[in-house]
Amino acid sequence: MSIENPFYTPEFHGEYDLVSIGRLDLEDGGSIPDCVLAVATFGTLNESKDNAVLVSTWYSGTHQIWRDAYIGSEHALNPDRYFIVVVDQIGSGLSTSPHNASGANAGITMSAFPHVRIGDDVVAQERLLREHFGIESLALVTGGSMGAQQTYEWAVRFPDKVRRAAPIAGTAQNTDHDFLFTRTLIEAITSDSGFAGGEYTSNDQVQHGLERHARIWGVMGFSTEFWKLRVYAGLGFEDMDAFLAGFLQPYFTAMDPNDLLCMAWKWQRGDVARHTGGDLAAALGRITAKTFVLPISEDMFFPVRDHTAEQALIKNSELRVVDDVLGHLGLFSVNPEFMPQIDRHLQELLDTPA
Amino acid sequence: MSIENPFYTPEFHGEYDLVSIGRLDLEDGGSIPDCVLAVATFGTLNESKDNAVLVSTWYSGTHQIWRDAYIGSEHALNPDRYFIVVVDQIGSGLSTSPHNASGANAGITMSAFPHVRIGDDVVAQERLLREHFGIESLALVTGGSMGAQQTYEWAVRFPDKVRRAAPIAGTAQNTDHDFLFTRTLIEAITSDSGFAGGEYTSNDQVQHGLERHARIWGVMGFSTEFWKLRVYAGLGFEDMDAFLAGFLQPYFTAMDPNDLLCMAWKWQRGDVARHTGGDLAAALGRITAKTFVLPISEDMFFPVRDHTAEQALIKNSELRVVDDVLGHLGLFSVNPEFMPQIDRHLQELLDTPA
Repeated sequence: MSIENPFYTPEFHGEYDLVSIGRLDLEDGGSIPDCVLAVATFGTLNESKDNAVLVSTWYSGTHQIWRDAYIGSEHALNPDRYFIVVVDQIGSGLSTSPHNASGANAGITMSAFPHVRIGDDVVAQERLLREHFGIESLALVTGGSMGAQQTYEWAVRFPDKVRRAAPIAGTAQNTDHDFLFTRTLIEAITSDSGFAGGEYTSNDQVQHGLERHARIWGVMGFSTEFWKLRVYAGLGFEDMDAFLAGFLQPYFTAMDPNDLLCMAWKWQRGDVARHTGGDLAAALGRITAKTFVLPISEDMFFPVRDHTAEQALIKNSELRVVDDVLGHLGLFSVNPEFMPQIDRHLQELLDTPA
Repeated sequence: MSIENPFYTPEFHGEYDLVSIGRLDLEDGGSIPDCVLAVATFGTLNESKDNAVLVSTWYSGTHQIWRDAYIGSEHALNPDRYFIVVVDQIGSGLSTSPHNASGANAGITMSAFPHVRIGDDVVAQERLLREHFGIESLALVTGGSMGAQQTYEWAVRFPDKVRRAAPIAGTAQNTDHDFLFTRTLIEAITSDSGFAGGEYTSNDQVQHGLERHARIWGVMGFSTEFWKLRVYAGLGFEDMDAFLAGFLQPYFTAMDPNDLLCMAWKWQRGDVARHTGGDLAAALGRITAKTFVLPISEDMFFPVRDHTAEQALIKNSELRVVDDVLGHLGLFSVNPEFMPQIDRHLQELLDTPA
């Protein structure tokens, strides 16, 4: 039976629409009988329908961080020029997810939720854009982390539809190291006896596991230098424990364990080479989009060199390193020097004819 | 009641002596009524007793890895020239440790074991060297990771006794990031219901926790590039899981949970600035030893820059970066290019008049 979680409501995520795209058959078998995508849009689709930008979301993130930090008339993602569609990933807690699967989806609730892959999200998003908005071509696809995975998947799977791509802090083929890191996140949750094989009745029962999960994020999500420089002090936190207790722990403990696990499983297996029998070069060779690859300098698990290796395999691409001592979680845009860099790169990319 | 663990025997650790240094009062309160140190020695102490080298051990490590990889007539740590004393740290499982505390130590067995600090080990080692071996001056103190913490503690606490120091892959003041990383290791163990508050009757009861602990080591202990390059394939392992199942997991699951926790607590709090009211520069300013600081290039949690910052505060010191894609666990000396670098630096240091 699905469960209520007040975190996944407009109170915490602002306005968004819930759009059904119907039945979604999944790559790994099974299906979502009624796949509902949470969608936040900004700006207006022009008549020629060529000003659309698609944003996909990262692990634990939703459209709301994009609304808060990335989108606005002062940003490259400017609603005055573009029709920006942010689609929350399956398992995000807003789109169809383990904890909210009910009605037609009652058969896949909680631990019964099927495995979803990055490709499933992209297929779902393509259908949404085509059937619901009539969009056949995207001026830009972008996203951070798992959003970068989806961006690559779009550019490889639908090269004719993606004119520009900007994967931020994420790779086209997930690495073994990332797989292992994600496994520790998963195990932090599932090792909590309150998890009960996924059949808890409230995320509160898994608080210890979610807190451990948050602390592992503390180790890998930022950089060693973030902690060394006590960057959190500038955010108003007295010490490391106050920062964890005031930010990372409440951030994650509000969330649904099964939803996080759904996304984690998906993250672990992101790989565009599934389209080419394991040949990454061949897969990335399919990309025709003008592509800016944007790693974050201090990222501990999507390191710059992993991006560099993939960027070298993309014809029409450039590597643009974003400097941020926050590391991967620089994506939260806490550092005032983060967004100006993102904006500069995205603006230049958007201004490039494609 | 103490428990048996066949791992902590000469079968797995070769020959060593058990030397009682008597009662050890601890910095954080409490005491070890009969502190026994496991000691492996190599070579002969000369008549002037000035050819002694002290090696201290890292988290989970003992003298045996030093015997296997670091010490020998082909190495800088040459028993033909030096009297090399490797002392297993308190909590190592060979010296007095939670799992083996019995007899006079019966009151501090298992969960009753008191907190031990790096300084306690160094005080114990100094007493051992002076009372048992008559050694008052050390040609070199060295060690990796927690052994580096002990090396710094020696050089700051007993500057007149340490002529040369070579901390490898470890810092004088543990960082917040390291504290947090270590906390995730601790929590991987203590979250296992079989841990039973430290009162399990066999480490087998904590296998799940020890395995999770091993996998977190997999994330942080090596480098992202180690996994990318599939270095484990060269070690005969087919894939990541085979490497974990064949190496890291059995390595850690053989060990005692309370012993690991004893070391982890100690590691988290290593800080020579305890001698100087928190002033790290003042503490490192006390060092008179000729010091080579040896970080490992790809270390994810004792990164090079943390070493660089401390080395800059030590008068008679040099930074010598050891290149190894294995990262921190390069200390296992699996890479054939590791020991030649260590030997070159240690030899040069030992050949420097001091």
